[in-house]
Amino acid sequence: MRTLKLTIAYDGTTFAGWQMQANQRTVQGVLEEALQAIEGSRVVVHAAGRTDAGVHAAGQVISFTLTSAIACDALLRALNVRLDRDVRVMNAEEAPDGFNARFDARQKTYHYAILNEPVVPPPLRHFVWHVPQPLDVTGMNEAAGVLAGEHDFAAFQAAGSDVITTRREVLASRVVSRDGQVVYEITGTGFLRHMVRNIVGTLVDIGRGRRPAEDMIRVLLSRDRAQASATAPPQGLTLVRVEYD
Amino acid sequence: MRTLKLTIAYDGTTFAGWQMQANQRTVQGVLEEALQAIEGSRVVVHAAGRTDAGVHAAGQVISFTLTSAIACDALLRALNVRLDRDVRVMNAEEAPDGFNARFDARQKTYHYAILNEPVVPPPLRHFVWHVPQPLDVTGMNEAAGVLAGEHDFAAFQAAGSDVITTRREVLASRVVSRDGQVVYEITGTGFLRHMVRNIVGTLVDIGRGRRPAEDMIRVLLSRDRAQASATAPPQGLTLVRVEYD
Repeated sequence: MRTLKLTIAYDGTTFAGWQMQANQRTVQGVLEEALQAIEGSRVVVHAAGRTDAGVHAAGQVISFTLTSAIACDALLRALNVRLDRDVRVMNAEEAPDGFNARFDARQKTYHYAILNEPVVPPPLRHFVWHVPQPLDVTGMNEAAGVLAGEHDFAAFQAAGSDVITTRREVLASRVVSRDGQVVYEITGTGFLRHMVRNIVGTLVDIGRGRRPAEDMIRVLLSRDRAQASATAPPQGLTLVRVEYD
Repeated sequence: MRTLKLTIAYDGTTFAGWQMQANQRTVQGVLEEALQAIEGSRVVVHAAGRTDAGVHAAGQVISFTLTSAIACDALLRALNVRLDRDVRVMNAEEAPDGFNARFDARQKTYHYAILNEPVVPPPLRHFVWHVPQPLDVTGMNEAAGVLAGEHDFAAFQAAGSDVITTRREVLASRVVSRDGQVVYEITGTGFLRHMVRNIVGTLVDIGRGRRPAEDMIRVLLSRDRAQASATAPPQGLTLVRVEYD
């Protein structure tokens, strides 16, 4: 058995998220179906980040094992021929035995794009959250900065999550402005469910002046989901990059 | 009666082009339908450039007359509420009596985007022509440059067109490389049907080394459509800007 590591990109608009679900079009589902056609039997795929419905990926990483001897470049082409064009294999390579894209991931980077103009240009409509009111990007960036480091992020976890620990390490957390967009960029060793979107909801309330920038540290320390703002919508979020040792 | 001038943007992917056609979703059709709901009677809209099916606009300009006293910003919002999100009114303003977006246009700029990488990132799939082979951008830009000036562009006109003259003036014509894309940028006082896409077809054959850069002037001077290459596909083309006195 060989272990393969693929970098994939997708437009999450018409997917019911990453994870396989009965009678739903999911990224895992279409990839496993395409791989089964090549392998001749069921292939189980692991992803670095299990993105929600409507969330995109530019550099998701997946792993799986294969008995087929197909070369990596031929595998890339064979998958891209079979897949719809809203999911693409960008790179395919061999990985060491036992490599698992999820458990071996060391860092993941997400970008969340906010369109801060009066009208959304049509090509961006599925890739941004539209916030037409002027945003205080400096205040948002100050608030974002306090999240760097290892903290208990329970305040930003989706209600009903069940994980052993809500402590996570954030390596970079900043807000930048470019081309009419305000983009939140976060890199961390791990993320809780809805963590980025819950942080963004709070950041945007700060940017709109509905809450002070100091609220971010207060919300973080509260460890109480009710203190954070509403979850930002999924379409602004993209899994940009995953790093391994 | 007031005359209005609107700047609109659209993702042409699921439109059968600009121009109204029975039982087809067209940009003119959806705009006239939305305007009729506001005006209470039929409104006829004129566009600077009548784009083909699959062709996009970032800065199309349209004009029409209205009896309604609705303010420009309220008109913009009312239209954007009614329209699907693949077409947006970006700006609305009053225009002098008799203004016609088509006949008064002085210059139009089109961009044609070629994705020159092995795999197309999903968000770009409806906005680029995928040419994976390495392109000679310098040769393409040299060839593009010879089109500047006033010439008979009959060689680049769609077969079966019926216009009084095939002479047109091109003010700028260049090929640039950015972010993995090769983009042809052309500004002219007027364009023949399929002119940009036929030029791009020829440019890409030059970029691939299938024909020498000198072919561009030879094709132009031939005034023979059969000398130019095949028409480039519509989805790479965007009407970027229209200028008026």
